[in-house]
Amino acid sequence: MSTRLPTQSSDFPAWYGEVVRRAGLAENSPVRGAMVIKPYGYAIWEAIQRELDGRIKATGHENYYFPLFVPVSVLAQEGDLVEGFAPEVAVVTEAGGKKLEEPLAVRPTSEALIWSTYARWVQSYRDLPLLYNQWANVVRWELRPRLFLRTSEFLWQEGHTAHETEDEAVAETLTILHDVYADTVESVLAIPVLRGRKSESERFPGAVDTYTLEALMRDGKALQAATSHYLGQGFARAFDVRYTARDGSEQYPYATSWGASTRLVGGVVMAHGDDRGLRLPPRVAPQQVVIVPILGEDDHADVLQAAAAVADELRAAGVRVRVDDRPEYRPGFKFNEWELKGVPLRIELGRRDLAASAVTVVRRDTGDKQQLPLAGVSGAIDGMLGDVQTSLFRAARDEQERRTLRDPSSYDEMIEYLRDARGFVVAPWCGDAECEARVKEDSSATIRCLPLEEQPGQSGTCVCCGRTAVTTAVWAQAY
Amino acid sequence: MSTRLPTQSSDFPAWYGEVVRRAGLAENSPVRGAMVIKPYGYAIWEAIQRELDGRIKATGHENYYFPLFVPVSVLAQEGDLVEGFAPEVAVVTEAGGKKLEEPLAVRPTSEALIWSTYARWVQSYRDLPLLYNQWANVVRWELRPRLFLRTSEFLWQEGHTAHETEDEAVAETLTILHDVYADTVESVLAIPVLRGRKSESERFPGAVDTYTLEALMRDGKALQAATSHYLGQGFARAFDVRYTARDGSEQYPYATSWGASTRLVGGVVMAHGDDRGLRLPPRVAPQQVVIVPILGEDDHADVLQAAAAVADELRAAGVRVRVDDRPEYRPGFKFNEWELKGVPLRIELGRRDLAASAVTVVRRDTGDKQQLPLAGVSGAIDGMLGDVQTSLFRAARDEQERRTLRDPSSYDEMIEYLRDARGFVVAPWCGDAECEARVKEDSSATIRCLPLEEQPGQSGTCVCCGRTAVTTAVWAQAY
Repeated sequence: MSTRLPTQSSDFPAWYGEVVRRAGLAENSPVRGAMVIKPYGYAIWEAIQRELDGRIKATGHENYYFPLFVPVSVLAQEGDLVEGFAPEVAVVTEAGGKKLEEPLAVRPTSEALIWSTYARWVQSYRDLPLLYNQWANVVRWELRPRLFLRTSEFLWQEGHTAHETEDEAVAETLTILHDVYADTVESVLAIPVLRGRKSESERFPGAVDTYTLEALMRDGKALQAATSHYLGQGFARAFDVRYTARDGSEQYPYATSWGASTRLVGGVVMAHGDDRGLRLPPRVAPQQVVIVPILGEDDHADVLQAAAAVADELRAAGVRVRVDDRPEYRPGFKFNEWELKGVPLRIELGRRDLAASAVTVVRRDTGDKQQLPLAGVSGAIDGMLGDVQTSLFRAARDEQERRTLRDPSSYDEMIEYLRDARGFVVAPWCGDAECEARVKEDSSATIRCLPLEEQPGQSGTCVCCGRTAVTTAVWAQAY
Repeated sequence: MSTRLPTQSSDFPAWYGEVVRRAGLAENSPVRGAMVIKPYGYAIWEAIQRELDGRIKATGHENYYFPLFVPVSVLAQEGDLVEGFAPEVAVVTEAGGKKLEEPLAVRPTSEALIWSTYARWVQSYRDLPLLYNQWANVVRWELRPRLFLRTSEFLWQEGHTAHETEDEAVAETLTILHDVYADTVESVLAIPVLRGRKSESERFPGAVDTYTLEALMRDGKALQAATSHYLGQGFARAFDVRYTARDGSEQYPYATSWGASTRLVGGVVMAHGDDRGLRLPPRVAPQQVVIVPILGEDDHADVLQAAAAVADELRAAGVRVRVDDRPEYRPGFKFNEWELKGVPLRIELGRRDLAASAVTVVRRDTGDKQQLPLAGVSGAIDGMLGDVQTSLFRAARDEQERRTLRDPSSYDEMIEYLRDARGFVVAPWCGDAECEARVKEDSSATIRCLPLEEQPGQSGTCVCCGRTAVTTAVWAQAY
């Protein structure tokens, strides 16, 4: 804690790594690419879980749990899936002291095992829809791991639903995208997102359409925050899931799957953090308020007592609060530590505050400092937490807007902008994978999404080849 | 659903398997020994998790998450642990398309990985205690799997703490046993437990002392409901975790670990279920009340409307309620289904009830049926749910008491009782492992625990060998 953090502008990856480490979010483990999620980082994940789980249930889904291991023959049953994930799969070949007759894949995702089971669960249209989700760990071997962002094991939820009609399945995919994911990411994590479809090259293996939320980090790179896939009837066919329809005919159900993971914790770090460390939105902050009693040389029982009383009042009002009364550290040290950890509000309480029947409150997001009367302090703090939540979202939205280049005047301008990771480029695209590949080669940027919202003022010709555009695309470098 | 369940008295294992399957709790997967936890079973687990997690946090612990994979060399660092678990470990030998340089064990438990990390986390007495827990899946290869009770993969929480003193670590072990585990199992799952220490042969590998909760199932076999281990300094020494003590000397911290798993769901089934199926304690029941509208031939909009109104009132009072208005099934079919699924209270609501401004309520635990006035129904239902909770606990406690043979008059009486699985035998023991082994060979029963509570009226000589007893032991056959 003695040396300063690297600044975001000088070395963003170093800044990220140091913040994650010093704030106690996560660290590397002896297994390459697999991280230890430390208590402070896990508490943020628990808040995200709570919010996602509530919305998943509110939209009619139930949780279940499927096994970690998938027989390799089951995984191989859906061609696109096995091809997409084969390079990342970890394989168990021995168990119970013996070589296994059939090796077991550690799930990289659970479509295969789940759809092989749905074959037993779906007989009639009366069994549909299946609206299920699971919270689980998955393993995808990573050659270039980054804490939270790309790890060989990560935690996530994966939803797997089955429906009678295509319309219903597509509607499900979008309900999840908007009402579960976008609502959580925007209103809880305070991260604004673009909502869109993936281009064919970026689709989930086996998906007909992949919907995505794309967020912009403070280094100008995009983070895919969550995806929701419309899978058509491919998985039903691959795993022979058939049912008797209302008209007596035999049909294949339509599938969706959707996931959000611990990478969202990394998103919170990179969307809001500044050169002093984390800035946590109150709705995911493990502690929303820290109270630092300012202790003089003399007896300070009264100050500690007042701090405890304020903490009790805040707790009673539902605020997550901690009193930092550690005698071995000075206030300045504590201020730095809690700023690093991104606690939204700091209350300083010294004898002078007490004499004025007041507390001093400092906002982490803006640094603003003000005195608040002790009477009614919990109402005022509650209001300020709401302000911090809103203002972090607005700041991130303004930043995203500022860093979005719309309708670049030339291909060269676009490539230069993307190469420098200055943010999103929104431009017309002919739909040809060759143009997409050319941009990637020239700039390392990919099409993040074909946005669902109408984009204003787009010209009618592809920014790469000049042919007639068929859609608008959003490009960026990405995590 | 057309055939009757096997009865408990005729074939308890068959009854168990059928109840688990028909009630939709779990089923087998294509991977031997690994189960699919279905939505209804998972909802019970979620309730258990909620209750345990709340108590774990209330006693000062935080959650974190350690990786699934443990390098085999790390696992091997603690001799007892690796010896104890080696026969059950699954091993990953390939990942990312290549053979791994070092094979990775899939965690059977996480002491090794966690203590190898604590070496970095603990430098000074100021870093202690570490009070942490994780929710995770673990894999222990099972040759004779049983849904929930013994599965190759299961879900659990595992706590791992480090302390300055032995006293503090032992106190932690007992706090977890009493305030977290026993309180959850008794007051939430309504299952009475014996609290005790394990004999040396039944201890956790590497533990100095293993504390356990032992519950009696309705077939007279015991279920180990949760364990809490005092690990001494063995893990600290094995993983070289040292810290600078208050007096400046270098010391090894004292460790505990403790776990409770999805086997508790099996415990709920076997402690309370009867020949009609599950009987769920209200505090873990996914649905506490089911409302079955009794629909006649004529228009029944009024009945459905009344059912919905009662449901709304109950929901507003915090009751988990479901209206079963499926038109394709008759009431009798629904009654059977919800009895099988163990819903604590069934409300029947027909035109005759409506005319009397009343509902008919049937208790699942006793079968008692009564009419309640519609006015104030939620208060009455809330009271009845409390009664069901209490009375399931009392019934299980009476059953346990009835099935406990204290101070058997002879070794033969004891062996016959144990062999027939008629329940617990409480008897004096000399402490010699040879006597323990002899009982096991003669009856298949093991020492479940050396009870913490004083046992009344125990003679002073070992029930097996006649030598002076040093303790009282509780024997039973066990899951």
